[in-house]
Amino acid sequence: MVDTPFAAALAEVAGLVEAALQNILDDAPLPGETARPERLIGAMRHAVLAGGKRLRPFLVVETARLFGVPDQSSIRAGAALELVHCYSLVHDDLPAMDDDDLRRGRPTVHKAFDDASAILAGDALLTLAFDVMADERVDADAAVRIQLVQALARASGLGGMAGGQMLDLAAEGRFGDGRPQLLDDAAIRRLQAMKTGALIRFGCVAGAILGRASAAERAALDAYGAIIGLAFQIADDLIDHEGDAASAGKATGKDAARGKGTLVSLNGAAWAREELARLVGEAETKLAAFGPRADRLKEAARFIAMRDV
Amino acid sequence: MVDTPFAAALAEVAGLVEAALQNILDDAPLPGETARPERLIGAMRHAVLAGGKRLRPFLVVETARLFGVPDQSSIRAGAALELVHCYSLVHDDLPAMDDDDLRRGRPTVHKAFDDASAILAGDALLTLAFDVMADERVDADAAVRIQLVQALARASGLGGMAGGQMLDLAAEGRFGDGRPQLLDDAAIRRLQAMKTGALIRFGCVAGAILGRASAAERAALDAYGAIIGLAFQIADDLIDHEGDAASAGKATGKDAARGKGTLVSLNGAAWAREELARLVGEAETKLAAFGPRADRLKEAARFIAMRDV
Repeated sequence: MVDTPFAAALAEVAGLVEAALQNILDDAPLPGETARPERLIGAMRHAVLAGGKRLRPFLVVETARLFGVPDQSSIRAGAALELVHCYSLVHDDLPAMDDDDLRRGRPTVHKAFDDASAILAGDALLTLAFDVMADERVDADAAVRIQLVQALARASGLGGMAGGQMLDLAAEGRFGDGRPQLLDDAAIRRLQAMKTGALIRFGCVAGAILGRASAAERAALDAYGAIIGLAFQIADDLIDHEGDAASAGKATGKDAARGKGTLVSLNGAAWAREELARLVGEAETKLAAFGPRADRLKEAARFIAMRDV
Repeated sequence: MVDTPFAAALAEVAGLVEAALQNILDDAPLPGETARPERLIGAMRHAVLAGGKRLRPFLVVETARLFGVPDQSSIRAGAALELVHCYSLVHDDLPAMDDDDLRRGRPTVHKAFDDASAILAGDALLTLAFDVMADERVDADAAVRIQLVQALARASGLGGMAGGQMLDLAAEGRFGDGRPQLLDDAAIRRLQAMKTGALIRFGCVAGAILGRASAAERAALDAYGAIIGLAFQIADDLIDHEGDAASAGKATGKDAARGKGTLVSLNGAAWAREELARLVGEAETKLAAFGPRADRLKEAARFIAMRDV
């Protein structure tokens, strides 16, 4: 995978983000006199320092580069976004939620620790994300950082990721008579735009905020983010639909087992592959005004749509 | 209780905060096209709009008044703090945490809804708190709002409330051999300064941040906040130690049942009453430089130390 220039660029940013996350967790605010909640720190480290592509921070860094924002700023902002992503995985994996024992081949936080530690680790990671985003080490004016904080909150909360997770649980039939809801195409799109799309989209808008982009530039990156967020989810659903667990590195066929409707189950795998190709083209169009500076973001769209893990 | 001037002032601010919280929850960010996660909104409303003294927002408003900050600013900031407090109650009540079925005589969120809804409602309330604190309706410069966001995050996270809750669960023997830890006086104070003290202290510092207080003024309010945070906890432990469930409006004797050491169980009820009186005097001393403008905050210290519910 690291044998293409894009994969190398992605891996390079992942390394920088990894170092920032390590630094953030080593350095997390603990006043001198305070007792150290070691088990909580351990659970947070387990959740965050587990490798991964660090795709969301990559989008922050790469969109910020369009405007000449130094990586030291965007890496910190990207790390804050990654903390939110990691918290969401910890809570989603809980027995009361999706009840998953494994993630990336390792025990989930509540399996490696316990449910209470996982709940608190998620809470503390979400909180830490806002601390990091607000911190002057993001190296942007307060006016920029406050915009980032608010946009991150909106992507993560009731109208974003958390709201989407709630709709997803409802679609599985968790709260009614136990029967899955039959969502139509539009309802699935709305749900996924919230649950997985909102954070990806925020990653693309974050670069525009850091770069004090014009309204048109910001709108273009927002649209690009929405498109690749959709592509990310369709690719994910396609892997679940087609893949075998060994190559995907996680359990597959879970959506069907949960009676969960996806755009792939609704429209078929052939449609999904065509739609992904169409979305890549659309994403490229949105970036046209940035010229060749945006080539890597175009490659990111292809990578997201065509990945098989 | 509303028959003293202080109780009337507290109730007046509580009314303003209630209206702000109602407005915030009615108005929570949901872009037009987005599906409404009604069950999540319902769980959030259940958690927040349950009455209560709204003591933490009162501290924000009253400390901000020392510097002539208009209530419209401090009420929004106080409401953000209250959202964090409410989220913490929702998560603490979960079966995996303290496993409480009742709060203020009503079913807890996970009883009225379910565990998944309670986890997500807590997450969404914490996230919403940062959205509200960052919002320009707090009506202060971005530089002030970013300080509020970061200070709130630090009071709530690993080195504050969440870390304190973790230490508390560990002290109950939840993670080791099941036997409660025997904490000494200093260890109990450190735990409580994090678990319950940090948010109360933030409430007092928030007014100083909003009011662009001098370093000395901010330090005085920080010290005042730490003292009343400790008094709050000792009073709480005393109620649990002495009280009967009917007058306290909640289950009492729970600390002892959980083998939980408190300053009251360690030092006795007579010591606790003396200590509370001493703390009230110390709190008043910290406010001396503000003169009679701080009279209501002095009354707040007495109220917190001497309350019986």
